[in-house]
Amino acid sequence: MSFNTFGKIFKFTTWGESHGPAIGCVIDGCPPNISISEKEIQKDMDRRKPGQSKFTTQRKEEDKVVILSGVFEGKTTGTPISIIIHNKDTRSRDYESIKNKFRPGHADFTYFKKYGIRDYRGGGRQSARETACRVAAGAVAKLVLSKLIGSKFNVIGAVTQLGLMSCDVNNWEDSEIRKNPFFCPDKKSIKLWEQYLLSVRKAGSSCGAIIELRASGIPVGLGAPVYSKLDTDIAAALMSINAVKGVNIGSGMSSAYLSGEENSDEMRMTSGKLKFKSNNAGGILGGISSGQDIVASFSVKPTSSILSSRETIDKKGKNSNISVKGRHDPCVGIRAVPIGEAMLACVLLDHYLMNRAQCG
Amino acid sequence: MSFNTFGKIFKFTTWGESHGPAIGCVIDGCPPNISISEKEIQKDMDRRKPGQSKFTTQRKEEDKVVILSGVFEGKTTGTPISIIIHNKDTRSRDYESIKNKFRPGHADFTYFKKYGIRDYRGGGRQSARETACRVAAGAVAKLVLSKLIGSKFNVIGAVTQLGLMSCDVNNWEDSEIRKNPFFCPDKKSIKLWEQYLLSVRKAGSSCGAIIELRASGIPVGLGAPVYSKLDTDIAAALMSINAVKGVNIGSGMSSAYLSGEENSDEMRMTSGKLKFKSNNAGGILGGISSGQDIVASFSVKPTSSILSSRETIDKKGKNSNISVKGRHDPCVGIRAVPIGEAMLACVLLDHYLMNRAQCG
Amino acid sequence: MSFNTFGKIFKFTTWGESHGPAIGCVIDGCPPNISISEKEIQKDMDRRKPGQSKFTTQRKEEDKVVILSGVFEGKTTGTPISIIIHNKDTRSRDYESIKNKFRPGHADFTYFKKYGIRDYRGGGRQSARETACRVAAGAVAKLVLSKLIGSKFNVIGAVTQLGLMSCDVNNWEDSEIRKNPFFCPDKKSIKLWEQYLLSVRKAGSSCGAIIELRASGIPVGLGAPVYSKLDTDIAAALMSINAVKGVNIGSGMSSAYLSGEENSDEMRMTSGKLKFKSNNAGGILGGISSGQDIVASFSVKPTSSILSSRETIDKKGKNSNISVKGRHDPCVGIRAVPIGEAMLACVLLDHYLMNRAQCG
Amino acid sequence: MSFNTFGKIFKFTTWGESHGPAIGCVIDGCPPNISISEKEIQKDMDRRKPGQSKFTTQRKEEDKVVILSGVFEGKTTGTPISIIIHNKDTRSRDYESIKNKFRPGHADFTYFKKYGIRDYRGGGRQSARETACRVAAGAVAKLVLSKLIGSKFNVIGAVTQLGLMSCDVNNWEDSEIRKNPFFCPDKKSIKLWEQYLLSVRKAGSSCGAIIELRASGIPVGLGAPVYSKLDTDIAAALMSINAVKGVNIGSGMSSAYLSGEENSDEMRMTSGKLKFKSNNAGGILGGISSGQDIVASFSVKPTSSILSSRETIDKKGKNSNISVKGRHDPCVGIRAVPIGEAMLACVLLDHYLMNRAQCG
Repeated sequence: MSFNTFGKIFKFTTWGESHGPAIGCVIDGCPPNISISEKEIQKDMDRRKPGQSKFTTQRKEEDKVVILSGVFEGKTTGTPISIIIHNKDTRSRDYESIKNKFRPGHADFTYFKKYGIRDYRGGGRQSARETACRVAAGAVAKLVLSKLIGSKFNVIGAVTQLGLMSCDVNNWEDSEIRKNPFFCPDKKSIKLWEQYLLSVRKAGSSCGAIIELRASGIPVGLGAPVYSKLDTDIAAALMSINAVKGVNIGSGMSSAYLSGEENSDEMRMTSGKLKFKSNNAGGILGGISSGQDIVASFSVKPTSSILSSRETIDKKGKNSNISVKGRHDPCVGIRAVPIGEAMLACVLLDHYLMNRAQCG
Repeated sequence: MSFNTFGKIFKFTTWGESHGPAIGCVIDGCPPNISISEKEIQKDMDRRKPGQSKFTTQRKEEDKVVILSGVFEGKTTGTPISIIIHNKDTRSRDYESIKNKFRPGHADFTYFKKYGIRDYRGGGRQSARETACRVAAGAVAKLVLSKLIGSKFNVIGAVTQLGLMSCDVNNWEDSEIRKNPFFCPDKKSIKLWEQYLLSVRKAGSSCGAIIELRASGIPVGLGAPVYSKLDTDIAAALMSINAVKGVNIGSGMSSAYLSGEENSDEMRMTSGKLKFKSNNAGGILGGISSGQDIVASFSVKPTSSILSSRETIDKKGKNSNISVKGRHDPCVGIRAVPIGEAMLACVLLDHYLMNRAQCG
Repeated sequence: MSFNTFGKIFKFTTWGESHGPAIGCVIDGCPPNISISEKEIQKDMDRRKPGQSKFTTQRKEEDKVVILSGVFEGKTTGTPISIIIHNKDTRSRDYESIKNKFRPGHADFTYFKKYGIRDYRGGGRQSARETACRVAAGAVAKLVLSKLIGSKFNVIGAVTQLGLMSCDVNNWEDSEIRKNPFFCPDKKSIKLWEQYLLSVRKAGSSCGAIIELRASGIPVGLGAPVYSKLDTDIAAALMSINAVKGVNIGSGMSSAYLSGEENSDEMRMTSGKLKFKSNNAGGILGGISSGQDIVASFSVKPTSSILSSRETIDKKGKNSNISVKGRHDPCVGIRAVPIGEAMLACVLLDHYLMNRAQCG
Repeated sequence: MSFNTFGKIFKFTTWGESHGPAIGCVIDGCPPNISISEKEIQKDMDRRKPGQSKFTTQRKEEDKVVILSGVFEGKTTGTPISIIIHNKDTRSRDYESIKNKFRPGHADFTYFKKYGIRDYRGGGRQSARETACRVAAGAVAKLVLSKLIGSKFNVIGAVTQLGLMSCDVNNWEDSEIRKNPFFCPDKKSIKLWEQYLLSVRKAGSSCGAIIELRASGIPVGLGAPVYSKLDTDIAAALMSINAVKGVNIGSGMSSAYLSGEENSDEMRMTSGKLKFKSNNAGGILGGISSGQDIVASFSVKPTSSILSSRETIDKKGKNSNISVKGRHDPCVGIRAVPIGEAMLACVLLDHYLMNRAQCG
């Protein structure tokens, strides 16, 4: 039972609210003697942080990570790594006007009903600001995996659907993803997406997104049936991200439409090396990695904070209307890319260690 | 870290292989003084058990549950409830011919690579036979929830997509679901589905399915952000079921296509009672139940054991071909309905108890 | 949170009541490809089972273990090992007369108050009968450790104090322990102990005991500070045994009386090998094994079921008197020896796997 | 598996090293709407902090707690409470001379062997400085328990044995304990203890101690057999404190010497109220609280850092000698009193919530 802790061996616990003095995480179970640095972690932080383009919230946060423990002379010691990120640009006044109303699509209502208390400033704990900590933990996980598995290890994510706009996944290029503000893997779609998202923002509206994650270099044998399956833990990891409503592994929901012949991935030895002829399984069979690329995708619902007036109720149970101004992403899904990568990296490292525990 | 245990307070551990002498589960953390009986549990078992229609495997198992502990004079004592189900109809010889080959789409390959040993008889532990234990645990969870929440509590599932055949969810009738062998909620689709599945079976092929689950009467406040969110745990629960590749909460993957206006569910007080104007959230906001119906769906890939010859390799790494005869469901998704219900019930009870722990 | 589960990676869950049809355990997380058999496990069971000498309860139980899952062709498969032990000699009538009274020193009162229900037959779940399952799990742990560490690994326990009678620990001989009904390590004390215990039994009274455990061949580095220290987990393991009231590691409670000079164990290299000059630490420094023998001891209170009349109350809160006839051990501490060994073996294996997970 | 996390529902995770920039803890699972403040927590911190008398280390630390999250407008929100304590008085140079040697009785050797890396500055993570975080968490637990149980709830500890000097526990007075620098409960022993400890310090030596803890107002029914027994968790909690080598519940190790008649606590109704005639059980029967006072004690070994020269080895495996100067407590056991209280409070709250989860 771990309300704010993720993982089983490589565990991280996050804390902090959107408008508190700081947020942070404590990473436990990290293998010792791995080189890590604030600078390396910061690279991933910078990909998630707000205020980077006109397509994300204008809240300005440096998201500067500070390591408080667990690292000595540049190396992990095997003890807890405490990371803190100070909040800089909090404007709690922005939230005064809505402090007694529940924003539809947000967790204002459910938090208040559950806990009997509500930190209305920027959503408090329910804010996606918490995800900065996940990215920090994920950055550490990637460094560890790179050391344990070697350079063939890689995790990368991209937006493959931006609201109503798709892209051609066959044009996926890793190098392209980090060059555009949408994490779009298909160069040809970028212009169109830009126009689309500008019009969404202009309308004071918002849109959803689908993010696809790919991990390569993953050894066969990670995953622990039947209730710690690799896909089970990936599903939990991704569904725990704010605003996520669906998760697919490999062919995902679409596998329902396939025939048995189409779906199961045939195997062949070619020049002494195993090749699967397709990857509907997303690299996972019976909850265990097969050596193929791990492929998962997830949907992010449209930002709930929009300009249009919406019907709601207030804390006293009176009907009311609400229109959320503040500073918001027209598509929160975009910034979910580094978060998804981070969560996937954490799950993979966790299972790497779990497998090492049981199977040596 | 719980390889074969599910849950946090209301926990169950399953054990057993497809062709071993028995399978079973141990339920821990069950509240005391709840009336339960083998007869009540058997009702749910009977809905999952094989050999009930021509659309499921012809393996004949009674799936008769025997309670070995934790119940005294008809009531739970608060101590572990051990349930055993003896295997009756095991024909391990059927598997002799494939014992050295890896069936594509199955976990034969990954189990062997992970553990260095393989119980080939009916898939051993990877077999969906394990899910009988989940249904038993779910039956107990339902009885507990009915006592704690009252008669307004209900969990029901249905197949809403059978391979390429959809049905009209607007025609959903609970009473209809248990009358047909497909758990189809729409009376009008049954005939077509029957013809479709017969032709799939005749072709020696198989098809996938989508199952939708609905839980009503769930109080507001269940769910524990941020890593034990109610939707996180539902996603894990459903993804852990054999052959599941995708999970949706509410609008799920489709939420990517909605605008902010369409997606967030507006709230209104009507005659002193809160009504949401839609349920895209599937009854969960910020990981906490909102009081609306919980709605989740999941896809089941087509049965991997098919008659058509498929390319594969054997234990020695030689190329080979395989065609699986044996006794198999043309659509394993159908029998996933009671399993999905069971898992959802277990998650809901677990969160009910967790909420009681923290919030009283 | 694990009411009836012990361990973190190598976990076992026990179930069953003293007078139910059976008791059992499910072992999860066991490494694969280890040879185990019912016969090997039975050897340890036979050392704990009742009715073996006039110094233990006359309840006759074979305590025959049956493996229901997790082993294929004589080897562990990495999946759950389910073990069942059928109860044979239950005489629930013996307990009719006390079913409404609370036996002082027993958990009758607290179970009833906590759960609102009481299985009075032989104490139900509170009975030490549960410990048979621990011995089974411990037997498996020993087999795994012997494979992983090699033949230098050993765990052995002995009674070093029987009520008021001590023995000379300097005369400790492993081979002696298994030859006498008291698990006494000092040949010279056996005769005296026999006379002492006969007189205790004759008086209808009972006595306590102190058990010392020694594990050798344990590699340096097992233990995970600061809340999964090796000594922390040993203390929990031993204190969880029925009737245990105190636990010592190395010098234990007596370390309070030592000076800093006496207490800390000096280190010296002798012919290229590290030697500690004493072992007050019991082989554990900062929660991590040092390579010395692990030494722990624990006290078992005298059997609470005695013939003498005792003051108590009944379920209605009326004053009453009670005298417990039935079949009881005059010193339950004796049979705690194999239980202590089993628990220590389980903790050591658990930490072996944990260390392998984090530190490779 | 929780290396640096304690607890099951009310959990806290500690981080930080003796000579790092800060130490801290994250408390998760705290019930919402409880009034807490830095000021209240500071009271407990001040009782543990160093540099308060000539009988403790002269390291000067304010141990000022800062709450970074989880509290809004003076009340807990149900989200993680992050507490930070900045280190002020670190003199890492003091440790330069011993950085390559292993101090006997310390964890220098085992940490280095386990992790392959060593933070020699003040012992790094192995330092008892970590316990400041436990006291902070315990202070929160006490505030929550006082709210949930009411004013009859109390936890208090005292030193009952200081090296070779005992005191008369029958003279125990709560009010006396906080008035003297030894947390001695018996006014008559203070003078003698003062002389004794001064001479120990003067000799450059150190001594051990025994601490007794008492909790009153604890409701019947806390504790979860069989592997989360209340006494099991208390034993683990206390054994996890630095330098602790033994734990007793009630009569503890001495229960071995009692007869069945002496040991089991008889029960009597007096004016409608249940009274136990003794408390050998320490308030716990079958792992569940009986409503009596919870009584536990533990031993703390003498400080290992002493002036006398001791034999040891260095990192290269060479024989060497060591004499530890620095700033050290002549009896670390004294400062273990508030730590023991804190740990006991955390266990009690955890079990309070666990019981509420399962039994309502």
